[in-house]
Amino acid sequence: MKKVKVFITLKESVLDPQGQAVMQSLHNMDYKNVQDVRIGKYIELQMDDSADVAEQVDTICDKLLANTVIENYRYEVEEEVHS
Amino acid sequence: MKKVKVFITLKESVLDPQGQAVMQSLHNMDYKNVQDVRIGKYIELQMDDSADVAEQVDTICDKLLANTVIENYRYEVEEEVHS
Repeated sequence: MKKVKVFITLKESVLDPQGQAVMQSLHNMDYKNVQDVRIGKYIELQMDDSADVAEQVDTICDKLLANTVIENYRYEVEEEVHS
Repeated sequence: MKKVKVFITLKESVLDPQGQAVMQSLHNMDYKNVQDVRIGKYIELQMDDSADVAEQVDTICDKLLANTVIENYRYEVEEEVHS
């Protein structure tokens, strides 16, 4: 079993109004030292072992999880330890 | 400048209907080897240097970013390299 951690972030050039709202809230809470907030997605997949997990995850991200016009993604594949 | 990466995930015991919907879509796309999908948030904060960044991030997560009743969070603090 593989555990795949996928991180989806907005591209640098894309505005993040949700992040701006969070930053404004933090400033209102007196965390003035927060300079920027960007909000993305973190997705964990549990996948059966197969030779081409990385290739599959690439396709899954491109087709379903990320909007590659405005988002970047990266992922880490970990061996799941059975207890 | 510090870059803080915050990962917010649903607790194990909490149902994730969004993740289930994504898993169903993946099965429909013939990725039958995906056993589970959990969807969380990934938040990047840019913060000015201060001694107690970790403590601040703890408070920020508890008060604003995470709902600690149903979510767990963890974070990594990185030194931002200026170019």
